[in-house]
Amino acid sequence: MARPTPMSGFPEWLPRERLVEQYVVDSVREVFELHGFASIETRAVEPLDQLLRKGETDKEIYLLRRLQAEDASDSDLGLHFDLTVPFARYVLENAGKLDFPLRRYQIQKAWRGERPQEGRYREFLQADIDVVDRDTLPFHYEVELPLVMADALARLPIPAVSMHVNNRRIPEGFYRGIGIDDPMAVLRTVDKLGKVGARGVHEILVDSLGCTPTQADACLALAEIRTEDSSFVDQVRALGASNELLDQGLEELGRVIEAGREHAPGLLVADLSIARGLDYYTGTVYETTMIGAEKLGSICSGGRYDALASDGETTYPGVGLSFGVTRLLARLIGQGTAQASRSVPTCVLVALPDEESRPRCQRIAASLRSRGIASHVAPAAEKYGKQIRFAQRRGIPFVWFPQPDGSEQVRDIRSGEQVDADSGAWEPPAADRRPQVSEVTIVEEES
Amino acid sequence: MARPTPMSGFPEWLPRERLVEQYVVDSVREVFELHGFASIETRAVEPLDQLLRKGETDKEIYLLRRLQAEDASDSDLGLHFDLTVPFARYVLENAGKLDFPLRRYQIQKAWRGERPQEGRYREFLQADIDVVDRDTLPFHYEVELPLVMADALARLPIPAVSMHVNNRRIPEGFYRGIGIDDPMAVLRTVDKLGKVGARGVHEILVDSLGCTPTQADACLALAEIRTEDSSFVDQVRALGASNELLDQGLEELGRVIEAGREHAPGLLVADLSIARGLDYYTGTVYETTMIGAEKLGSICSGGRYDALASDGETTYPGVGLSFGVTRLLARLIGQGTAQASRSVPTCVLVALPDEESRPRCQRIAASLRSRGIASHVAPAAEKYGKQIRFAQRRGIPFVWFPQPDGSEQVRDIRSGEQVDADSGAWEPPAADRRPQVSEVTIVEEES
Repeated sequence: MARPTPMSGFPEWLPRERLVEQYVVDSVREVFELHGFASIETRAVEPLDQLLRKGETDKEIYLLRRLQAEDASDSDLGLHFDLTVPFARYVLENAGKLDFPLRRYQIQKAWRGERPQEGRYREFLQADIDVVDRDTLPFHYEVELPLVMADALARLPIPAVSMHVNNRRIPEGFYRGIGIDDPMAVLRTVDKLGKVGARGVHEILVDSLGCTPTQADACLALAEIRTEDSSFVDQVRALGASNELLDQGLEELGRVIEAGREHAPGLLVADLSIARGLDYYTGTVYETTMIGAEKLGSICSGGRYDALASDGETTYPGVGLSFGVTRLLARLIGQGTAQASRSVPTCVLVALPDEESRPRCQRIAASLRSRGIASHVAPAAEKYGKQIRFAQRRGIPFVWFPQPDGSEQVRDIRSGEQVDADSGAWEPPAADRRPQVSEVTIVEEES
Repeated sequence: MARPTPMSGFPEWLPRERLVEQYVVDSVREVFELHGFASIETRAVEPLDQLLRKGETDKEIYLLRRLQAEDASDSDLGLHFDLTVPFARYVLENAGKLDFPLRRYQIQKAWRGERPQEGRYREFLQADIDVVDRDTLPFHYEVELPLVMADALARLPIPAVSMHVNNRRIPEGFYRGIGIDDPMAVLRTVDKLGKVGARGVHEILVDSLGCTPTQADACLALAEIRTEDSSFVDQVRALGASNELLDQGLEELGRVIEAGREHAPGLLVADLSIARGLDYYTGTVYETTMIGAEKLGSICSGGRYDALASDGETTYPGVGLSFGVTRLLARLIGQGTAQASRSVPTCVLVALPDEESRPRCQRIAASLRSRGIASHVAPAAEKYGKQIRFAQRRGIPFVWFPQPDGSEQVRDIRSGEQVDADSGAWEPPAADRRPQVSEVTIVEEES
């Protein structure tokens, strides 16, 4: 066949890049499990009617059909476009067999049937955590979940993150408190701040939505509030609105921010401009940016749903965050900033003096592996220089040399130092045991 | 929404079952990496023309189309039905950036657009290892690869396996050596032994393929040879055929079997009845059954291709094995024989005396986590009996009790033993740190 070319929107990694992805996935998984989250995986497909429940994405679904289907029996199946819809279905389907509250994580690919174009992913990896309960979900999970995700992100070789938090009760209560009847319309307008600016938002609020100039000023002032402690409460109060929903929102957001200050100082910011998703979330909402790389946008967002799922009789409220692994990795790897120290797991290449020695060399490699040291034998009994270059090209740090007298030597091919060694006892430095992933710097590009 | 029901052919696991799957995947991954295999993942989709290169599966492909596509731009994409086709494409696409010989493993789902019916998987997890080289691939990889896979399978909580090995040169050379012109037609007939029996095969060979009764007898005699050492060579010789290809096949199979006897006694069986796949494999072929559960069929098979991939100029020969994770797990989990010791990763539940103590309890849990002990705080400050039952239902072995005087105690809820403990120093028994998966017994069902 002719040489194939990459397919836009379906990123794939070379082995050395894949090691970075594995490192990221392993790290977040470990933290999720340390916090007691259980793994689930759902099938890649859902019935189309489930997928269409979230109206906004109905243009981005991949439908399936069997190549040789005589009927249209599978034509109502589509690939999931996130992990929330399948999780909600899984909860309903297995409700009788699950223990609630359920702490679950899910690291899987999702697909969106986007037009092929630069920067749009049609296949991408997500890492989600959610706590879901039956009927009611205590508020404290809205405090805990962002800290779990922050704990996971802190293990990654990326800049520190800042998690911007709002509570959907604050804008809704505030808008109602100043006499606005359709808070959702106002919220959608305020969400355009970045695009049309304060003046543009003000104009729409007054001209199209019938706000008074004073109301519009207050809405803009609310969206400007951003504090790392609970002082946002006084700033909101100074704007003069009064409403029960607002009071509840301020109290809840205050608890989230204060818990953040105790457990992860500098992490959380009360940011009353966060509007995205407020129409389907019902409590706290989160967006996460890397400090110094804010233009990359949110790498992890989520919030609380009062009804993640419902079967008519029972409702399952939940709170969760979703980390966009591919979105982050594509930028890191695309910039060449994320680096694994080698392209293979191998720590020791066992050199082959001659083909007859292969069984002996296999025994040496097996002996190293029995103590968890990744090792295999060189492909051919070439000159040692060529065998060393085999290791060098892959970044394998050590080459093992069986000696004619039955003894053994190991060479650190970075320093060239070669010493006597016993394959039944030798240990590599801890940092060489597995490929290392170095801390990266994010270079912001003009968008 | 109404309560959804499971979808035939798309198995999903409950959290406790998923732990078994994770254990299996983690175990084989660890072994593959110890042997220096690098991970890759390929996108879920391939162009339809790539997928159709393997003629036999053209009826089982899921095609994609975008729900709202105005044109048919994605209609030539399908979900991959194995990991070999995408790997071959990946090798060609990235040939200039890969180091050969390339040792890669790939653990991913694949899809087949089967009719919905019992026991047919439409989504399934595969774990593949392959070594691929440019132009030529040394024979010794045909010796090494089955031992790597056997090493991986040996870590699983399943019965010991037996790997049945043949070399496609043996039947082809043998048939030619006794004067048969169309060895492939004979091979396909001999492959029906299980279905139509020796008498049926004999009949087809003589009546339809024009073999003499003596030739047919010899073909059947060859397929009966099954030895755990190299004695199969003499048994084949005794049948009187002589052919250069046969000689090469016997020599190669002998080397595979002898290496197995050295590195993994009892693992390999020379089994000259193995015919499956011989029409696209070009050297050694492997099939693997669990001892005492042979009726389950092969859980892992593979072989050598002289041209895994080719771009017209360069050919990439390879040898690999594919382990059907879902096929195995569905049986283990379906029988309820595979068990994880708990349904969550949590090792310690920190009990909550009252809601005001939550920050203190969070600090205790964080202290345990900092030493790699999975822990979280109870959902609510209920009576201790209820909190203990929360742990019991999930199989969490330890509950931590903060005391009013600032001290702490930990209870093993299996024994009821409760002792003073310091969350900054306490260590659980090694076996309790993570969920354990117990050794399973396979119960054969009549097929």
